[in-house]
Amino acid sequence: MLDFQKVKLRPELPELLEQYRDFVQKELFPFDLAVVTGPFKSYLPQLQELRKKAQKQKLFAPHLSGKEGGLGLNLLEFAYVSELLGQSPIGHYVFNCHAPDIGNMELLAHFGSPWQKKEFLEPLQKGETRSCFAMTEPENAGSNPVNLSTTAILEENHYLINGRKWFTTAADGAQFTIVMAVTNPEASSPYERASMIIVPLDTPGFQLVRNIPVMGEAGEDYLSHGEVLFEKCRVPKENLIGIEGMGFKLAQERLGPGRIHHCMRWIGICERALDLMCRRASQRMLNPGKPLAEKQSVQNWIAESRAEINASRLMVLDTAEKMQIHGAKAVKEEISTIKFFVAKVLMQVIDRAIQVHGALGVTDDTLLSFWYRHERGARIYDGPDEVHKAALARSILKKYQS
Amino acid sequence: MLDFQKVKLRPELPELLEQYRDFVQKELFPFDLAVVTGPFKSYLPQLQELRKKAQKQKLFAPHLSGKEGGLGLNLLEFAYVSELLGQSPIGHYVFNCHAPDIGNMELLAHFGSPWQKKEFLEPLQKGETRSCFAMTEPENAGSNPVNLSTTAILEENHYLINGRKWFTTAADGAQFTIVMAVTNPEASSPYERASMIIVPLDTPGFQLVRNIPVMGEAGEDYLSHGEVLFEKCRVPKENLIGIEGMGFKLAQERLGPGRIHHCMRWIGICERALDLMCRRASQRMLNPGKPLAEKQSVQNWIAESRAEINASRLMVLDTAEKMQIHGAKAVKEEISTIKFFVAKVLMQVIDRAIQVHGALGVTDDTLLSFWYRHERGARIYDGPDEVHKAALARSILKKYQS
Amino acid sequence: MLDFQKVKLRPELPELLEQYRDFVQKELFPFDLAVVTGPFKSYLPQLQELRKKAQKQKLFAPHLSGKEGGLGLNLLEFAYVSELLGQSPIGHYVFNCHAPDIGNMELLAHFGSPWQKKEFLEPLQKGETRSCFAMTEPENAGSNPVNLSTTAILEENHYLINGRKWFTTAADGAQFTIVMAVTNPEASSPYERASMIIVPLDTPGFQLVRNIPVMGEAGEDYLSHGEVLFEKCRVPKENLIGIEGMGFKLAQERLGPGRIHHCMRWIGICERALDLMCRRASQRMLNPGKPLAEKQSVQNWIAESRAEINASRLMVLDTAEKMQIHGAKAVKEEISTIKFFVAKVLMQVIDRAIQVHGALGVTDDTLLSFWYRHERGARIYDGPDEVHKAALARSILKKYQS
Amino acid sequence: MLDFQKVKLRPELPELLEQYRDFVQKELFPFDLAVVTGPFKSYLPQLQELRKKAQKQKLFAPHLSGKEGGLGLNLLEFAYVSELLGQSPIGHYVFNCHAPDIGNMELLAHFGSPWQKKEFLEPLQKGETRSCFAMTEPENAGSNPVNLSTTAILEENHYLINGRKWFTTAADGAQFTIVMAVTNPEASSPYERASMIIVPLDTPGFQLVRNIPVMGEAGEDYLSHGEVLFEKCRVPKENLIGIEGMGFKLAQERLGPGRIHHCMRWIGICERALDLMCRRASQRMLNPGKPLAEKQSVQNWIAESRAEINASRLMVLDTAEKMQIHGAKAVKEEISTIKFFVAKVLMQVIDRAIQVHGALGVTDDTLLSFWYRHERGARIYDGPDEVHKAALARSILKKYQS
Repeated sequence: MLDFQKVKLRPELPELLEQYRDFVQKELFPFDLAVVTGPFKSYLPQLQELRKKAQKQKLFAPHLSGKEGGLGLNLLEFAYVSELLGQSPIGHYVFNCHAPDIGNMELLAHFGSPWQKKEFLEPLQKGETRSCFAMTEPENAGSNPVNLSTTAILEENHYLINGRKWFTTAADGAQFTIVMAVTNPEASSPYERASMIIVPLDTPGFQLVRNIPVMGEAGEDYLSHGEVLFEKCRVPKENLIGIEGMGFKLAQERLGPGRIHHCMRWIGICERALDLMCRRASQRMLNPGKPLAEKQSVQNWIAESRAEINASRLMVLDTAEKMQIHGAKAVKEEISTIKFFVAKVLMQVIDRAIQVHGALGVTDDTLLSFWYRHERGARIYDGPDEVHKAALARSILKKYQS
Repeated sequence: MLDFQKVKLRPELPELLEQYRDFVQKELFPFDLAVVTGPFKSYLPQLQELRKKAQKQKLFAPHLSGKEGGLGLNLLEFAYVSELLGQSPIGHYVFNCHAPDIGNMELLAHFGSPWQKKEFLEPLQKGETRSCFAMTEPENAGSNPVNLSTTAILEENHYLINGRKWFTTAADGAQFTIVMAVTNPEASSPYERASMIIVPLDTPGFQLVRNIPVMGEAGEDYLSHGEVLFEKCRVPKENLIGIEGMGFKLAQERLGPGRIHHCMRWIGICERALDLMCRRASQRMLNPGKPLAEKQSVQNWIAESRAEINASRLMVLDTAEKMQIHGAKAVKEEISTIKFFVAKVLMQVIDRAIQVHGALGVTDDTLLSFWYRHERGARIYDGPDEVHKAALARSILKKYQS
Repeated sequence: MLDFQKVKLRPELPELLEQYRDFVQKELFPFDLAVVTGPFKSYLPQLQELRKKAQKQKLFAPHLSGKEGGLGLNLLEFAYVSELLGQSPIGHYVFNCHAPDIGNMELLAHFGSPWQKKEFLEPLQKGETRSCFAMTEPENAGSNPVNLSTTAILEENHYLINGRKWFTTAADGAQFTIVMAVTNPEASSPYERASMIIVPLDTPGFQLVRNIPVMGEAGEDYLSHGEVLFEKCRVPKENLIGIEGMGFKLAQERLGPGRIHHCMRWIGICERALDLMCRRASQRMLNPGKPLAEKQSVQNWIAESRAEINASRLMVLDTAEKMQIHGAKAVKEEISTIKFFVAKVLMQVIDRAIQVHGALGVTDDTLLSFWYRHERGARIYDGPDEVHKAALARSILKKYQS
Repeated sequence: MLDFQKVKLRPELPELLEQYRDFVQKELFPFDLAVVTGPFKSYLPQLQELRKKAQKQKLFAPHLSGKEGGLGLNLLEFAYVSELLGQSPIGHYVFNCHAPDIGNMELLAHFGSPWQKKEFLEPLQKGETRSCFAMTEPENAGSNPVNLSTTAILEENHYLINGRKWFTTAADGAQFTIVMAVTNPEASSPYERASMIIVPLDTPGFQLVRNIPVMGEAGEDYLSHGEVLFEKCRVPKENLIGIEGMGFKLAQERLGPGRIHHCMRWIGICERALDLMCRRASQRMLNPGKPLAEKQSVQNWIAESRAEINASRLMVLDTAEKMQIHGAKAVKEEISTIKFFVAKVLMQVIDRAIQVHGALGVTDDTLLSFWYRHERGARIYDGPDEVHKAALARSILKKYQS
């Protein structure tokens, strides 16, 4: 646990963070509530403008290397940035480092073939296209990912894919998906049966069945979760990422940093929610000159939120630092820890902010309702709380086995 | 606290409850998710059919006396019924005992003039019209209700009403509202400044500004919360309920039983959510033959939910019984107690049910998302948790003052 | 769950409860802190005086029938009394209805032979002797009670008992114990292997190894928990209660009402702790004229405690009522529910009361420290929280199995 | 909040920490339960031996400079050591860096006169004497420290001290106390009325009234909390620390690092409790081959404890680092944050560990009962949770005042 190694941070990081903070507060805060209230597509031109502005200010794609058009931040540096972007629900999108695209970029950058990189990765990195990731299946418990019904059968240099997926986030408007499918049902280990395959969404046999109504909204485009169907969907063998049976290994690689990204984004949300809470508490008068902020219950919530957010940030940064030094596998325990810890903090802080806002808190006149609804999933996606707790505990307990 | 008096329950109550349970399960359960997914208005004809069926089975309007077309249940008996109706989000509506109409009916029945009863109450009781209640104001903290900006000035036998209200639930499609407005700004007690006045919604100067988007949905008709504007809105003096300055007294009268109705409805929601939780836990397989129900975390949630729901029910029934015997004023402490206790249980049970459902839990494919969103307000409306806790504590502490 | 049958309460119950309340407040409250601070034995003469006073006032042994020298209260009536006695840590002792003796009395009254009743039960009922109950073993998890190492082998009309028990409460100074020991190791069901046998503590081979230091105190006499050893301890066959293999059945019979007794006693503790909390909050000044009671955090604790205590009481009384009507087996779910629910409330209320008392709260100058320490076991003895939750959940889930 | 400055840690720190870990595990763990079970004085010779061993291994007094006989660790380095020492309840004592002596050493080193240093500080640093700190008063709320009744009146170059203090920790056997007393009642600011004065405990008029029975134990010597009385207690003017009216300033200086010491000690306790929890869970069999560790509730507790402990450590280390760079005043918010956050975690982890141990957990056969009882004060001393939360919130809210 104790680790005195430190990741070297670029000296200009503090200044860079100020630039991001500035951009987010000035360009995104006045605009983001409207975008998430939607319809999302109507805001695409303005979002595109913002992306150009980010590019001009050399803030675009912070996670990509310089030659890929980015800033070349390391994982720890990017974590700091990610928190700032997370304060706005359109932050990561504008800077082109949003899920699921960032995960797909990481995956293709590490494991994609040269052809895949050129064909699929490069347009993504430039923000010209979007992609999605089709893993979760409605009829199988996501907490046990080896249970997959979707199959990809190799026939004449093509994979024939059949299956139903859901929570294929942002499928609406994407150019391609990466799909997890069983290619090697006979493999002895259940962890070696599946593969990841790229499927352009205009492939015959692919169908976006619906944008799933989630917490009152089907949404659209980037702000949507697709239910998708693969029926005799044929793609060339070249669309396989890596080698057959490597699906779960890739998924783990993808999820490690992915969880850090999520956690830092959540901390950004927490900071904004706490800010809204303090603002409202200071301005809302119970009686002339008696703001809500004088109520000890409200003070308790602010103090507890502050403490929990600080704790979350330090843990996530610590995990990012260790992951960068020792690799994702070495921090499996830490990853599980932050996943369930920060997700809980997130929901608590949002809930308190709503309560401080009273009736206004349940309306869509603030961002709180959006987060209350759409971040409830944080305790479920990428492994529900219970799965991460059990995994962490079992890992700890291993050292006690005689 | 100890009270050995008991309210006499009609002998046929158990049988009657079975009839309600049957109706709710057979007629409403297969249909209610569609209705709340909306658009609500498209379901009005079918809802009308259901009301007729309820009338035919002599189950309609359980809270009204026989001569008003109801069953004449007393408060305690109605509490039992209310839980059953609450299991469906359209339960109270179909049986014409839904908020805010039930509160308005109680108010007009007790305090309305003969003309008001004939003109406004009777069509309500028959289910021919709907009404709403305009009290909360966006610019004043609801937790201190004496701060009201809306005014009603008596001019030539008419009240001239000006002000803005919000969370005027179900204003869309209603025939009239009861509005709380300051008529006597000079009254020495801040509790004697306001009055309740009936305003037909076709009165010039009344405007439904918008159905407030709440938790992702503006909704419509009965399922909506209006922001409404009164601009030089003139109604005859006869529309005053009771006498001038009586507004808060009436509001208290209205809220007492109203909170019992809400609490029993919430318990109904809890029972349905717990049922969904158990059903899902039993059917969802982690591995063949290994249902989610075998997980101890899930078992903990089921057990804790069962305990909390039982506790809630017993407390609300106890409060209803005492209110019926001793009146609403005698149970002020109990009313505050159940308000914050049951609202908390409600949110906890819904949240656990969502977690057990995993990804499905955040979709609109079950009722859980609807309740998670639209019942978050339970901890806010009719007095936020904190106000009720403080009121209860201060009342208890009075006995300790030397 | 719904049950409209009611247990008939004697008309004089309210008055009787006032007498108990009076006795407890006037005779026990001024004295009980000294007794539990100890040494307990030094207070035995005064406690004996109090018992005589209770007898004179016809309040002694409320749970026993008139001809046994008691008041003949039914289970529900006794529950009301039990709460009042529980407000003092010596309440049940003074009135001779304290654990473990009350459980042994119930057991012997129902299942004892005439000889056992005369020899062991009668002196207990009169308060002339004390007894104990030896079930829990240090080397076996109490949560799986079928794992027992203590054996009783029948040899020439005697049982030869060997084994080690602990948490044999109040063994120090008791006349006899009832021991749970395996008599039929070959029985097919693990629930039919053990029996209950009476062992007078002067039997050779019995040894009180130590009064276990529990939470800082070994205690003595009634206020102690013994570790006891049976080494070739021989008792006549007549000391067997009921028939061989009946041990677990008897234990269940004993535990059912026992848990109601515990729960009502805990509610009594809660009421006293809440009273201390309110008293302190009202008297402790932060500044002149500014009592601690004005702090919203303190108000929250008072309100939440009030709510949780009310909920607990109603649930326990409801369970007692149903148990009396339908028997212990019919309320297995309710018994598990109250066990974990009320134990949690108990610890929360005590903890809040300590916090309100500040530094004084951790001293032994109030009763709070005694309860904080010695009631922590409430979440463990008679089945830890987790076991009761799992039992309850599994019972509920049975209805969902297809 | 963000701060990229880092404190330089000596390169040999990791190795040094291993030495401490080794010492604590090998020398203290086998012995500490006996010491705290007491009587403490009977173990003084063995504790003295251990101190010599620590000196020989050059581990003694890590917080003191080399020329004072210590290791010269900076605050951050010492924080790491402090966690390791905290794993044993005698750790800090053996290494002579225990409260309240460490606080008094820091105070005298910074503010003592040369005479005071020679007379009082040096013997403390060598571990030849012990001292105590008399601030809290039974009749005044500690949460508002300006309310002090103890007075020190200057008369003929002597202070005449009168007053009653309690929770003067470790007064029994100490050579002197530092007392907080009002010397300047007329000062305009209530924060400038009190002074700190050294009082040797053999001064006439000083009396150790009692070792306060705390959570079942009066304790003795270092393990005790004194109630002390000053009656016309005369000490020379030279015993004043700093200047008159400086008392609260000094108290703040003393408390800043003091809270970091406490927090790191608590984290040490948490680590040991978690270790005991895991050990017990792994060894306790519910059925042959089925350890308690397989229960998901136990796994949840282990995972949640791990997360909360990690969060606590990172926050305290971060605070220590910032305090060292920027001074105590700059980290007032952080100090309040860790005080209430870590104290809560501490109690939760201990409580879970007890629950995992079942009946054993409430006995004094493990350290858990000691900590459960004697660390309950952690949420009260040095400012109760509520005071720190309010202070933190008000500090945050200042930025929102218009």
